[in-house]
Amino acid sequence: MKTDIEIAQSADVWPIEKIASQVGLKPEEWEPYGRDKAKVQLSEQSQENKLGKLILVTSINPTPAGEGKSTVTVGLADALMHQKHKTMVALREPSLGPVMGLKGGATGGGYSQVVPMADINMHFTGDFHALTSAHNTLAALIDNSLYQGNPLNLDPRRILWKRALDVNDRALRHVTIGLGGPTSGVPREDGFDITVASELMAILTLSRDLTDMKQRISKIVIGYTYDKNPVTVADLGVAGAITTLLKDAIKPNLVQTLAHTPALIHGGPFANIAQGTNSILATKTALQLSDYVVTEAGFGADLGGEKFLDFKAPLLGKVPDTIVIVATVRALKMHGGEDKQNLKTPNLSALKLGLVNLGQHIKSMKRYGVPVVVAINQFTHDTKEELALVNDYAKSLGVEAYVADVWGQGGLGAQDLATGVVQATEQAESQNFQPLYQPEDEAIVKINHIVQEIYGGDKAVLSGKAEKQLATFKKYGWDKLPIIMAKTQNSLTDDSKRIGAPKNFDIHIREFIPKLGAGFLVALTGSILTMPGLPKHPAALDIDIASDGQITGLN
Amino acid sequence: MKTDIEIAQSADVWPIEKIASQVGLKPEEWEPYGRDKAKVQLSEQSQENKLGKLILVTSINPTPAGEGKSTVTVGLADALMHQKHKTMVALREPSLGPVMGLKGGATGGGYSQVVPMADINMHFTGDFHALTSAHNTLAALIDNSLYQGNPLNLDPRRILWKRALDVNDRALRHVTIGLGGPTSGVPREDGFDITVASELMAILTLSRDLTDMKQRISKIVIGYTYDKNPVTVADLGVAGAITTLLKDAIKPNLVQTLAHTPALIHGGPFANIAQGTNSILATKTALQLSDYVVTEAGFGADLGGEKFLDFKAPLLGKVPDTIVIVATVRALKMHGGEDKQNLKTPNLSALKLGLVNLGQHIKSMKRYGVPVVVAINQFTHDTKEELALVNDYAKSLGVEAYVADVWGQGGLGAQDLATGVVQATEQAESQNFQPLYQPEDEAIVKINHIVQEIYGGDKAVLSGKAEKQLATFKKYGWDKLPIIMAKTQNSLTDDSKRIGAPKNFDIHIREFIPKLGAGFLVALTGSILTMPGLPKHPAALDIDIASDGQITGLN
Repeated sequence: MKTDIEIAQSADVWPIEKIASQVGLKPEEWEPYGRDKAKVQLSEQSQENKLGKLILVTSINPTPAGEGKSTVTVGLADALMHQKHKTMVALREPSLGPVMGLKGGATGGGYSQVVPMADINMHFTGDFHALTSAHNTLAALIDNSLYQGNPLNLDPRRILWKRALDVNDRALRHVTIGLGGPTSGVPREDGFDITVASELMAILTLSRDLTDMKQRISKIVIGYTYDKNPVTVADLGVAGAITTLLKDAIKPNLVQTLAHTPALIHGGPFANIAQGTNSILATKTALQLSDYVVTEAGFGADLGGEKFLDFKAPLLGKVPDTIVIVATVRALKMHGGEDKQNLKTPNLSALKLGLVNLGQHIKSMKRYGVPVVVAINQFTHDTKEELALVNDYAKSLGVEAYVADVWGQGGLGAQDLATGVVQATEQAESQNFQPLYQPEDEAIVKINHIVQEIYGGDKAVLSGKAEKQLATFKKYGWDKLPIIMAKTQNSLTDDSKRIGAPKNFDIHIREFIPKLGAGFLVALTGSILTMPGLPKHPAALDIDIASDGQITGLN
Repeated sequence: MKTDIEIAQSADVWPIEKIASQVGLKPEEWEPYGRDKAKVQLSEQSQENKLGKLILVTSINPTPAGEGKSTVTVGLADALMHQKHKTMVALREPSLGPVMGLKGGATGGGYSQVVPMADINMHFTGDFHALTSAHNTLAALIDNSLYQGNPLNLDPRRILWKRALDVNDRALRHVTIGLGGPTSGVPREDGFDITVASELMAILTLSRDLTDMKQRISKIVIGYTYDKNPVTVADLGVAGAITTLLKDAIKPNLVQTLAHTPALIHGGPFANIAQGTNSILATKTALQLSDYVVTEAGFGADLGGEKFLDFKAPLLGKVPDTIVIVATVRALKMHGGEDKQNLKTPNLSALKLGLVNLGQHIKSMKRYGVPVVVAINQFTHDTKEELALVNDYAKSLGVEAYVADVWGQGGLGAQDLATGVVQATEQAESQNFQPLYQPEDEAIVKINHIVQEIYGGDKAVLSGKAEKQLATFKKYGWDKLPIIMAKTQNSLTDDSKRIGAPKNFDIHIREFIPKLGAGFLVALTGSILTMPGLPKHPAALDIDIASDGQITGLN
């Protein structure tokens, strides 16, 4: 059996100008990056195009290996293309840290991939590198301000802006900097996040244009003064320079699937501490260029899905026309209590018990008034009986389910799913959309809506610190910002070990992190790692390149 | 008067395919990066082209502002193009840290620039970002090995491989990492270098191809075991992954000057702790594509010049056909004792005293048996008498000098220089080349040749530590490696305050740094900063971007 990179490397990749002309881009609307990648910036005229239909791919609570959302997204888009619908894919960019670590890349898999696979997984068009540069340039300017007499009266113990690298490096989580005597800065505690966790990543993916981006960057709170007043990038006077460093990164990237479906891949914020989907500019550009756009949101419907509907959709000015919930037999067996080692073994009783996880996500997504379908991402070891059980369960909740073999067959394995999705979108009426909460609701009201209607729990419980923070935020005028829940992706609760669809639980908010540039408050439940580590056997050990440039071992 | 970026932004920049076709590149030999940049990889057939003539631009010991070597390099190349010679420029890539700090960019100035200026000064085609990623991925893999049971028996106190960022950030010079308890790594002292100081930068610019690069990366010494044996990247098993991250960075970048002279800009190692010139691949590619190649070496002839002739030329397989020494009236006045604040004021007596600095560089460069000419880089405040004095002095040493106004007039300001250089190259005979030392000479013999014949000093004095290191290196078989002198650029001595051409001095070698991947020993005199800091008023404060993408304040 061929590996993902072998399939990708043997692909017939079209020159990017062919893809650009296929989607109707004018020559001045795109710039090549190599022969098979481009950056896109629509003219004002093209921005007035009628928007296509939007299909949001989300999932049940995943196993650590993921349930193949990107693969289904790509396969579904290819299937729509096979059915002669003008379609585009909108995905997030992979982070290099996990590529060298355990998880591998994020370009789909098998015969449902975007290409050039190795390039997209490594440096792509340099967006993440530009973010890393911009992030650390801002950090250096902050420490330089401390060193040059501290004119902003910044408290070195209360600086919020850490440093960032696109690498899995646990040794950089907690560091002390500024050591080495008076010519080498002011000593203080600091830490590094992985680049995708940077507030600049969230900002890049939320900005309408350069002006919007510069305004957002100006508002970033970098820390507090000794008398506890917030200090922003505007106070430091460097929003222009930081925006300048992101002038190209703001443009969406055009590539193609193995079946030559055009794909915009842009940005990659986490779905816990940020909104977890590709950029608003990329999604909107895709909607302006095609009749169907298939996009995904990170982690399960409780994280990425909820954030897409409550936070991204209002900014995008467009709600999905259909929501696809990806489920796998293996993950549902895990939710039924089966051991992670045995998920390949047929087990109807565990599967039956685990279906409630899918049930909760169907219920929570249906609540928005958007048509919902289930995609069962088929694995070779799934039995007919297992697949039928999931199918029947979905039907019992009034939702159609379709088995899709996108890994093994690409778009040809998702024909039924594509037909079902098109039918569903035809029933969609955007005026039916039911927002979960109102912008003017108090933070605790917003959070309780999420806990009760999305997670199926009882209520949120705030720590003393979180309570106190909300009081302070009220003073600063931050208390009505949208809420971004940072919660484990493995459970509907805030305890990663609680599988299935628990009832009668509370969600514990430890603290809030204000992200004024991105324009939201992160509500932190438990500890969320913003700098991953490498495993005992990192993927880097298996990656190699031959003298002719042929790469092996990249997943 | 227009600023550099205003001149660059109003330039008529040709599409890169026009430049590529002008230099005779076949379509499969280049890839676009945007509309005005490309990466180049010659076919085997083109690599057999006859090599053009090589002109090396170096300088006297510079003032902190630099003497305009890049500007002269670009202006001279444009002048050669005006005279119908098929010419290319080969330059280093600018580092982003100084662009945001004090020094500004490194793309020439006035009417002698390479474009697109802002892109080249910021992210360009991502080479430095790829190096930063590769460098820090290796660092993360080292700390992960420590964390996962330390199978290589690495002594955490003797790890040589630091971390790297392309930013001026003094607070990262000395840090402690791995804090935060047992799940966040092994605590140890560490530090960050600016990316251009990474050994990977030296390796990138020395490698013939991917295979050569992988072999060099394998040999990097990352630290020592508890029993003091060297540990390499090969021992860690990740040379393949690190090389894979540099698969595109190894390809030279094609851009153009304001006058459309094709320019290859690639790599940017320091000229103190590394060889200080653009990549061997770029220089060779330029030589294979044109009749004249104008290139520069960092800092003065005592640093970049010497390293080019003694270290790069043998690897390149080509010695320069002419050496151009750039001198400015202002720097020579400084060498004559004039205060840095008064360098714009005419002062013939200070100038006369300072000429000895030029004299020593003429003498040291002539000693290699390569024709030497002097380019007087003209500033608006230079008087006729001052320029004539420099001219006469050069003549008295048997060398022609030419006044060049490349900043104000571009190539038109360097016509005489170009004519003189062409005449000089016609006298060049490569068999006349006289190497400074033999590869098999002992380290101390090599260093003494440099001290006596290039710096005009007496001898090198080794510290106890350096003596001991040489004994250890003999054991490891490292003692015959080429020597890279890390010395202040401001003086011929190892004391930055000693101007002119001092006599009767020793050079003090504090310690050696083995760079087995790059293939040299750095001989450290005094303290060389490998992570710069930001000034009180960083350039970032003045940089801005308008809604239409127009950039201001970038120098």
